Amino acid sequence: MADLPALPDDALRIVALGGLGEIGRNMTVFEHQGALLVVDCGVLFPEEHQPGVDVILPDWTALRDRLADITAIVLTHGHEDHIGAVPYLLAERPDIPVIGSRLTLSFLSAKLTEHRITPALVEVREGGKLDRGPFSLEFLAVNHSIPDGLAVAVRTRAGLVLHTGDFKMDQFPLDKRITDLRGFARLGEEGVDLFLVDSTNADVPGFTTSERDLAPAIEAVFRTAPRRVIVSSFASHVHRIQQVLDAAHTHGRKVAFVGRSMVRNMGLACELGYLTAPDGLIVDTQTLERLPDNKVTLVCTGSQGEPMAALARMASGRHTINVGDGDTVLLASSLIPGNENAVYRIINGLTARGANVVHKGNAKVHVSGHASVGELVYCYNIVRPSNVVPIHGEARHLKANADLALSTGVARDRVLIAGNGDVIDLHDGHAAITGAVEVHEVYVDGHTVGVLTEDSLAERRALGQDGVLTVIALIDRDTGLLAEGPDVIARGFVHDESAFESLAPVLEKTLAGAAERAVTATAELERRIVRATESWARKALRRQPVVVPVVIDA
Amino acid sequence: MADLPALPDDALRIVALGGLGEIGRNMTVFEHQGALLVVDCGVLFPEEHQPGVDVILPDWTALRDRLADITAIVLTHGHEDHIGAVPYLLAERPDIPVIGSRLTLSFLSAKLTEHRITPALVEVREGGKLDRGPFSLEFLAVNHSIPDGLAVAVRTRAGLVLHTGDFKMDQFPLDKRITDLRGFARLGEEGVDLFLVDSTNADVPGFTTSERDLAPAIEAVFRTAPRRVIVSSFASHVHRIQQVLDAAHTHGRKVAFVGRSMVRNMGLACELGYLTAPDGLIVDTQTLERLPDNKVTLVCTGSQGEPMAALARMASGRHTINVGDGDTVLLASSLIPGNENAVYRIINGLTARGANVVHKGNAKVHVSGHASVGELVYCYNIVRPSNVVPIHGEARHLKANADLALSTGVARDRVLIAGNGDVIDLHDGHAAITGAVEVHEVYVDGHTVGVLTEDSLAERRALGQDGVLTVIALIDRDTGLLAEGPDVIARGFVHDESAFESLAPVLEKTLAGAAERAVTATAELERRIVRATESWARKALRRQPVVVPVVIDA
Repeated sequence: MADLPALPDDALRIVALGGLGEIGRNMTVFEHQGALLVVDCGVLFPEEHQPGVDVILPDWTALRDRLADITAIVLTHGHEDHIGAVPYLLAERPDIPVIGSRLTLSFLSAKLTEHRITPALVEVREGGKLDRGPFSLEFLAVNHSIPDGLAVAVRTRAGLVLHTGDFKMDQFPLDKRITDLRGFARLGEEGVDLFLVDSTNADVPGFTTSERDLAPAIEAVFRTAPRRVIVSSFASHVHRIQQVLDAAHTHGRKVAFVGRSMVRNMGLACELGYLTAPDGLIVDTQTLERLPDNKVTLVCTGSQGEPMAALARMASGRHTINVGDGDTVLLASSLIPGNENAVYRIINGLTARGANVVHKGNAKVHVSGHASVGELVYCYNIVRPSNVVPIHGEARHLKANADLALSTGVARDRVLIAGNGDVIDLHDGHAAITGAVEVHEVYVDGHTVGVLTEDSLAERRALGQDGVLTVIALIDRDTGLLAEGPDVIARGFVHDESAFESLAPVLEKTLAGAAERAVTATAELERRIVRATESWARKALRRQPVVVPVVIDA
Repeated sequence: MADLPALPDDALRIVALGGLGEIGRNMTVFEHQGALLVVDCGVLFPEEHQPGVDVILPDWTALRDRLADITAIVLTHGHEDHIGAVPYLLAERPDIPVIGSRLTLSFLSAKLTEHRITPALVEVREGGKLDRGPFSLEFLAVNHSIPDGLAVAVRTRAGLVLHTGDFKMDQFPLDKRITDLRGFARLGEEGVDLFLVDSTNADVPGFTTSERDLAPAIEAVFRTAPRRVIVSSFASHVHRIQQVLDAAHTHGRKVAFVGRSMVRNMGLACELGYLTAPDGLIVDTQTLERLPDNKVTLVCTGSQGEPMAALARMASGRHTINVGDGDTVLLASSLIPGNENAVYRIINGLTARGANVVHKGNAKVHVSGHASVGELVYCYNIVRPSNVVPIHGEARHLKANADLALSTGVARDRVLIAGNGDVIDLHDGHAAITGAVEVHEVYVDGHTVGVLTEDSLAERRALGQDGVLTVIALIDRDTGLLAEGPDVIARGFVHDESAFESLAPVLEKTLAGAAERAVTATAELERRIVRATESWARKALRRQPVVVPVVIDA
């Protein structure tokens, strides 16, 4: 973190390398007295303008020559957007201690096993305290859409910082583990100098409904379903699945899990006691196949319309489970923006096959995992922070959260809307943006990490929109003119060769012009072929294909 | 319409060529005594899995040798998904009479002028009647998100069919032109043999709110905006724009329209009296620029996140209007599924620039144009149809609408869920599906209509996801081995040439193998190069690029 103002020994520096201005790849770095502490290290899922990208990582380029200074990674909970990038960071320095709750670490371990990394894990619980270098950490229970979430308080000589992680304030959670507002109040009494607050639902009015309020709708599905019940939800939403298991049990059905991440996570959750099921309730799919339809519950992945997941394959008839009349499909999940068409395609496909599809659009089968306006305002009033930085959100969420802080009386110049890379220094009880480190999108793309460029992505978008035209020009060494052809190969549009007949004279003219001016360098000929072909395509095809020139001496 | 059962003289045949199982490209064909009647002829907008496609047309292949039998095209209203394909149908037979209300025909004419077609227009009004061949038509007022909508009743010897078009039942529309339920009741008394009913909101509980209930939120924007007000809405939503004009006038602001379709449609609506504005309220953008910010209202297109529209360019700083602190942007529009990310990007961009963005997520600034469950049930009970076919909707909407018909007492075997191309015969008061004509997606793509294939689209998706690898193999005629190279050109991913070093030996081996077996045909060599390159890419790059082989004899 070069080119930044020197950091006094009694100051704390905070830089978010991801999660500000976006929902995902959360990663916040704390610096104090030369030591670094990382809170969360997640991935961001690509949008439609980033085709082919697997995931996007936070950009820790600025940390690269200071990896040795990292005292620990603290994980607030086990969602991908908080833990997904840990394997990539550990690949650069495997012995960084990773601190988190039991379920969080178990989900992380499963992931690290796939990456063949053996991590240094430090398990903590709510109420626990831990010192790492100059950082004194205290962990507080928070409630979220995955069990075992933690907020983290960071004490340094610069003061007390409270980082909520992702949280909501369900007053009746299934595991009775409520967000520790009493702890928030105690810290508030002590004086929270800086409050980092989840913004995801800061523009949603009112209070987030309790998870247990979904029970009637889930129960109704099981009570009325004449044949199979197929449930799709997030593979980490232990409490949602618990409600499904309970309803299945009540109505004498068995349950099988389908989909790699669902099987793995629910296995871990059972093992560790986060998910409870009477003996014999959970069976494997082979056992399930031998049961009558009205004894069957399948719990599978694919609630976001992922085309390769079990649910999408059932909807389009590409799965061994042949969904039909009388089957009931329950989508007990949110609809993440950008996935609407994919999810509606599945709902339509299942409906057309005769299934009754129950989803958040027609029944109360989902609640959010994040605090809405109502809860956030409670939080601000309980904590009464000196300084606030909204985290975890797009611009609109950060702005809405900042407005909430202001509405509870936080001073206007103490509410900072920051972006990824912005450097926030907390000194003498005052937080201020003092500089910025450069951050970019780091794409994981096939085998590569951070190699894919914005230019390549722009090319992909162009290829996807308009296809590609390979133009092969065999050129006579002596005359500089076309020896034959040109040959044209199109992909992604009209394959009819006659469409390209009018291109030949254009290229002949282009090459004759080049020969006249004694232009012979291959690169320059290629440039001219591209230019001429592009301009021809705009007129003749009203398209802008990517043109790949191949110049060969005959 | 070959291979279908013969149609008795007292029977009516109905085939939807679009609009069933999708929202868009509505087109229903009626056949009676050898004559055809077309109701609506619209376009469908492509989804993300149809990249580069401009629009999708209904597939009237089955009509192509019967164009002369078409007695008329009836247009229910002026939305693109009901009129957008008319120019393409008239291109095949320009003298088909087109019947519609005044505003509908004026929007169509503007479109046909661009296509250089002079149509045979027949203007009708609500309450009007008209005979075309064996079809007796009667038109009834319906209320929708565009003025001057019509339902159409079609009387033939087979009975009475009522087609709602798109409609809702706003009891207090701005133009006081309510859906003619009294007319629906009168037809019901006469006996509606077949009811074709808009399904768009058949899964939305309750009643659609009145357009006039948006006034307080729109008014609040104008009352409190300190600087400019920028409004974005659909370019055909005359009544929404009327509310904006009224509020602007009340608060002493001037209004300019921005965006080609907005300027054109609002000009027509003013001219014909559908939009009313006091003298001097509407100005051009040059005049607006000279006014102080708090006197300015801009009404522009782009509410669905279209990247080239004015709004998107303002959000990303690519527009002469520099949106900033104190500006208010009002998105007075719906959010069509699939556009969420694009729209949120705009909201985020505008928010990050300091604008206050008011949209349906945080204020009551949009109502739907379609009847919800509440209104639909009223309709069924007033009309009491013998047979029902839900139209205009995806599978989930059609199913929901069918369930509504059943709930009001229509007999189970008289409620038909049909797909595009399904042939419905109404005979002896009974409607039944008697066959099907083949229908496909007809893509308008650059200069081509109906040429783009599903294979080409699959190629585009592959190109967009994984890029393209052009492999150039110069082959020695004598040995059949590589004379040099191979040369590899990548687009859409890693440009680093070293990534392809390990491909050379693979291709050398492939060609040596071919030479050994005396394989010399270019097509076969190309196939082997593609196979070898694909398999190499899967392993070496974990990608599946499209491979374009270029085999040249050296």
